[in-house]
Amino acid sequence: MKNADVVVLGGLSGITAGISCRRHYPGKKVILVRKEGTVLIPCGIPYIYGTVGGPENNVIPDGLLENNGIELIKGEAVDVDRTRKVVTMKDGETIGYEKLVFATGSVPLIPPIPGIEKQNVYPVKKEFDYLSEVQQKMNDVKELVIIGGGFIGMEFADECRKGRDLNVTIVEALPRCLQMAMDDEFCEEAQAKLAETGVKILVNEKVEAILGDGKVSGVRLADGRELKADMVILGIGAVPNTELAARTGLELGFKKTIKVNRYMQSYTDPDVFACGDCAEKPSFFDGKPTGVMLASISTSEARIAGANLFSPTHQNCGAISVFSTVINGRAFGVAGLTERTATLTGTRIVTGTAEAPDTHPGGMPNSCSTKVKLMFAKDTGVLLGGSICGGKSVGEMINVLSACIMHRMSADDMVNFQMGTHPALTASPIMYPIVNAACKAIIPLKGIA
Amino acid sequence: MKNADVVVLGGLSGITAGISCRRHYPGKKVILVRKEGTVLIPCGIPYIYGTVGGPENNVIPDGLLENNGIELIKGEAVDVDRTRKVVTMKDGETIGYEKLVFATGSVPLIPPIPGIEKQNVYPVKKEFDYLSEVQQKMNDVKELVIIGGGFIGMEFADECRKGRDLNVTIVEALPRCLQMAMDDEFCEEAQAKLAETGVKILVNEKVEAILGDGKVSGVRLADGRELKADMVILGIGAVPNTELAARTGLELGFKKTIKVNRYMQSYTDPDVFACGDCAEKPSFFDGKPTGVMLASISTSEARIAGANLFSPTHQNCGAISVFSTVINGRAFGVAGLTERTATLTGTRIVTGTAEAPDTHPGGMPNSCSTKVKLMFAKDTGVLLGGSICGGKSVGEMINVLSACIMHRMSADDMVNFQMGTHPALTASPIMYPIVNAACKAIIPLKGIA
Repeated sequence: MKNADVVVLGGLSGITAGISCRRHYPGKKVILVRKEGTVLIPCGIPYIYGTVGGPENNVIPDGLLENNGIELIKGEAVDVDRTRKVVTMKDGETIGYEKLVFATGSVPLIPPIPGIEKQNVYPVKKEFDYLSEVQQKMNDVKELVIIGGGFIGMEFADECRKGRDLNVTIVEALPRCLQMAMDDEFCEEAQAKLAETGVKILVNEKVEAILGDGKVSGVRLADGRELKADMVILGIGAVPNTELAARTGLELGFKKTIKVNRYMQSYTDPDVFACGDCAEKPSFFDGKPTGVMLASISTSEARIAGANLFSPTHQNCGAISVFSTVINGRAFGVAGLTERTATLTGTRIVTGTAEAPDTHPGGMPNSCSTKVKLMFAKDTGVLLGGSICGGKSVGEMINVLSACIMHRMSADDMVNFQMGTHPALTASPIMYPIVNAACKAIIPLKGIA
Repeated sequence: MKNADVVVLGGLSGITAGISCRRHYPGKKVILVRKEGTVLIPCGIPYIYGTVGGPENNVIPDGLLENNGIELIKGEAVDVDRTRKVVTMKDGETIGYEKLVFATGSVPLIPPIPGIEKQNVYPVKKEFDYLSEVQQKMNDVKELVIIGGGFIGMEFADECRKGRDLNVTIVEALPRCLQMAMDDEFCEEAQAKLAETGVKILVNEKVEAILGDGKVSGVRLADGRELKADMVILGIGAVPNTELAARTGLELGFKKTIKVNRYMQSYTDPDVFACGDCAEKPSFFDGKPTGVMLASISTSEARIAGANLFSPTHQNCGAISVFSTVINGRAFGVAGLTERTATLTGTRIVTGTAEAPDTHPGGMPNSCSTKVKLMFAKDTGVLLGGSICGGKSVGEMINVLSACIMHRMSADDMVNFQMGTHPALTASPIMYPIVNAACKAIIPLKGIA
């Protein structure tokens, strides 16, 4: 039997939790256990099929573990005895622990569509060999159908078309792609950008059956139409991977995530922590569990869990939900609530929007118009969320908003915001759209005519 | 005699103050008075000589004023009678006001170097025709000497060499270029980037005399060496333009800036406000007046002043000092204090640094390594400043830091920071260097071995 102070089960957030633990407690021995031979960068998976060229170019190097003094054991943990504090591996090996971290992530949601088990129907698993197989098969594909127009679906569609002569169709059940993530006007712009590339987008459509004799040959929609398909990608979401956690007696909560307190400590056992997609996550805003799964949240939780293992002090402030994507060269990002999600809780809001080139003057090379929409609570003036679309700088502008939301900045605070500006890098100091959107929201906030 | 509720004197921050006033008090009549025919984007001035091609491409359109219902009067205000509340123009016209805003900016500092008045010696004035003349003359220049290796000097050197066959030499009195703004390692990297372009950089050198018979033919350094020059650009700083303010009896403070309270209201007269380079600015950190002049501070002060005119409530939190620049394609930014400035006040600090590609995987196109250095107060863990160099995203990453500094975020808070990440737009969630630099600073902050 092996022994460690800390055993971490899992991939991406497991690495981050391990590193965080070693930083805070450099004397502790940490073992990371995982099934996968290599860990893929999860947000990079769609890019395997276009821009980056293959899964081998989308790997998190294990050197990160070595450099941080973390031992890696490749294999499947099949049992946890919380009384004896021992993890048992599939090959029978046992590992004793003082603190255990579940960072087991999520697995693709497989909907009960008849025919879903047919060949060439691929849910997006985070597995190297599997994704390699998809890549090889894709070279012979003429008709690709993607079920689900969320981020994964949209990004797959945008990437798979690159350098390949194939028809791509997205089938989305809601009235708009990305509707769970962004407000209508941004969904519509993203959808139009993708349509420009020749990707066909069907909304308000459900796949009722997957057709074919062993291998997929098409899909049948609820309205009876049939689409040809020699490959189907499933991008409709993920479910937490908490089977082992359940078996070991940990209390599960919302959508079968592991129930944890603000320290990322499991409700059931103070020596067991959880982080990432497998852990329950309260919303930053109302504290209710939220089903959102994002690498930004997972790694933040992992840093908190790692820091708390031997002295719980760091509190999780809850999921703000910050993300960005690129569709046919245009970037879209959201931080915090959207108008749609705010409306669900009944919060009275005011919005402010502003648009400006992301250079100044706008005539600088590669200038791109950037649109910002901010949303504030009507009663307190506090920033609840923001959406941005534009060029590459959207990726970090959305993080400016994340910092502002985390600190409950008000529209009035934003009058004071001092943003650095530079002709080649940002909008002009007069036009900077985050600040200007906040300034505009002051009018309805103050009830100025 | 004309009459207005608000008269604003000045350029860039004047426009912003006017717009802010009109947003907060839509019923008020605002007149903007300025000497200049057109207002240039100040940070864009060096780019006139390279990337943007001319001053006509670097103008703030007066449409901004019209759109916001602000009347523009072009001309010079020569007198203010604060008792009668009347501004007198050079042509004799008078304008009555209820509230007056000084946004008169700054003018170039002209050092007392013998020969400074010779032809083809150009301090960087923010005047359209003047800068056009410099551009025309530059076409015949073979030897350009730039006095001062701050931002203006470095950016001029980088731009003037573009598309021209001329030798550029920077003469800097300090041991490093940009030394007033950035820490040594960043100064050295910026300097090396500029040197790659063929620009010659002389440090620890002072210009003792400007040579030539009417027209400049060279400069003599303190060590006796002579450099050939048929044009000299002076970029050694600016002084507040407060002559009229002084004449009208407003109290001046640090370096002859107009003394203002937290509401941007002058000490002397509650109906007179000031903002931008002409106003005294306390440091965000210790409250002492600081000589820093940045568009980010000016426009922030202008928004505050405009909002406070008829009901002072918005408080200026003081100058954080946030800026960015690009030298030969590499971006550099600083928010808040540097190690050098923190050391001046005796603050005990700890630093954390991290480096990561600004895409993930690093193999994405146009990936660029980004280096982040953060500085925290040793005793409280609060973020005091950060420096970043890398690609285009530095422009907004530095604004993430600005928001974190403004809210006195601690290194522990940063463990919680939820940054959105995307393969094409940002570093990976595991490597995100702002968060990782903070995580590394925790080791010395907590005194972990």
